[in-house]
Amino acid sequence: MSDSQKPYILAVDGGGSGCRVAIADCDGNRLGGAIGDAANVASNLDSACVNVAAAINAALKDAHLDHHATPNICAHFGLAGYMDEKQGQILRKKFKFHKLSLTDDRPTTVLGSLGGQDGYVIGIGTGTFCGASNAGQMHFVSGRGFYISDQASGAWLGRRSLEIVVQCDDKILVHSPLTQSLLAQFNNINAMVKFSVTATPRDYARFAPDIIRAASNDDQHGRALMNEGAAYLRSALTTLGYQSGERLVLTGGVGPSYLEYLGKPFNTNITKPLGDALDGGLAMAHKLVLQSNEACA
Amino acid sequence: MSDSQKPYILAVDGGGSGCRVAIADCDGNRLGGAIGDAANVASNLDSACVNVAAAINAALKDAHLDHHATPNICAHFGLAGYMDEKQGQILRKKFKFHKLSLTDDRPTTVLGSLGGQDGYVIGIGTGTFCGASNAGQMHFVSGRGFYISDQASGAWLGRRSLEIVVQCDDKILVHSPLTQSLLAQFNNINAMVKFSVTATPRDYARFAPDIIRAASNDDQHGRALMNEGAAYLRSALTTLGYQSGERLVLTGGVGPSYLEYLGKPFNTNITKPLGDALDGGLAMAHKLVLQSNEACA
Repeated sequence: MSDSQKPYILAVDGGGSGCRVAIADCDGNRLGGAIGDAANVASNLDSACVNVAAAINAALKDAHLDHHATPNICAHFGLAGYMDEKQGQILRKKFKFHKLSLTDDRPTTVLGSLGGQDGYVIGIGTGTFCGASNAGQMHFVSGRGFYISDQASGAWLGRRSLEIVVQCDDKILVHSPLTQSLLAQFNNINAMVKFSVTATPRDYARFAPDIIRAASNDDQHGRALMNEGAAYLRSALTTLGYQSGERLVLTGGVGPSYLEYLGKPFNTNITKPLGDALDGGLAMAHKLVLQSNEACA
Repeated sequence: MSDSQKPYILAVDGGGSGCRVAIADCDGNRLGGAIGDAANVASNLDSACVNVAAAINAALKDAHLDHHATPNICAHFGLAGYMDEKQGQILRKKFKFHKLSLTDDRPTTVLGSLGGQDGYVIGIGTGTFCGASNAGQMHFVSGRGFYISDQASGAWLGRRSLEIVVQCDDKILVHSPLTQSLLAQFNNINAMVKFSVTATPRDYARFAPDIIRAASNDDQHGRALMNEGAAYLRSALTTLGYQSGERLVLTGGVGPSYLEYLGKPFNTNITKPLGDALDGGLAMAHKLVLQSNEACA
């Protein structure tokens, strides 16, 4: 980093549907940002790199900085699907910052949501993760993807609800307004089966709002699904060491909808998120500045 | 059909991993047969047609018949994934038999397994279906595919077992010998997650023998999975009208493994299958001959 310039900090929050970039000075004042396309590095590392690079360029422009600023930037990427240093090596080759740290998007979400305080975070959108932060140490449960993890997620709710529709169609279970309306969104059960053959987690997650709404209208299958999801979340929080009265943040598009199903003692200290994954990413980038022992106002 | 020749009957049994063809005279004496490649018409109708045609040609050769025999053949195709007459029109255009009837592979399996008698059939391999035959009328439950149906199937057992491995790795559940050995088949949990992103139902079904073996060795997670599958099968049989003492056939690569988990009264009259889906298909082809009022010895 050149001595003449103060460092900048940059954060990338990448997920399966898009990515976001924020740039700040090292006091944390936001200078610019941008949004870009999907950046899940497990699904497609190459296109994630392309999309992240495009969003970073747009953010630099938005902050009135140019490429020459890059050696003065400490950056943190929190990317869904980030699992190992093998991915890290590829990313580090492509992105030449003064310093670059990498995690998946769970630590950045926990840090941002809790604002650095101790507590627990349930982050649920298309996927699910549960995290605990204790004196700077983080632990996680779930978040391993739709196929063998992520119970209670939007995608999980969607797939499970169609499973129930099939069982209603088979007369093993009795239809409710929810299952009838889900079936009505297809021509018939065969069309639903055809949909399932190629449906992605995002495709399934589109049914989550229907399920959440039906559950709050006391639909039996909707309530059963939310209760099943909540049971998983309770066991995850208990595994992470949650004790009655501790701070818990519910975040993501689906997370807050579990509030009324979590029950005691988990609902005793629900806290609004203090920030998001970009805030967390900027905080991690700021740590890199401090580690560099660079002068920072 | 030419008057000079007695009709032949031909059956195709098609599934996601292969197809089989049998040719018989109209007394049911097998004249020849062949096996061929995958023929699930929902997954890939075009390649199913190509594979079925190749297997039929091989079977004609095996029976010392040639293409000129085709107009003298009444055929039945029981093809996995067959759902509607739209697929039927495409198949009827390609295959010019004297008569051709089409179903999915559930009716042929029920007819073959029960030898035309009344009773119930649980057919489980990679997928699951439950069927009832009562005075020639058949009813089915499940069999709608891996993604939103087919509980208790080989693929279902495999995916659920990996879901449990993740929960053991997360310390929500406690490892058993089964979950440890499943995890050991991958380098680590991340490798298992990567596998899950592209795993097909067949990929998951490969774990079914491990699970079945562990369950009979009293592995807690193995037993829980077999019991969960059996609970679904019991509800399916009950929905189909099963009454204590009625005939029940367990068939397919996985089906018979559920015997000890089904419990009373479902285990009171377990019958060995009298035949298979090819026998059922030949019986359906023979019905076409009778409907044609053709002279048949």
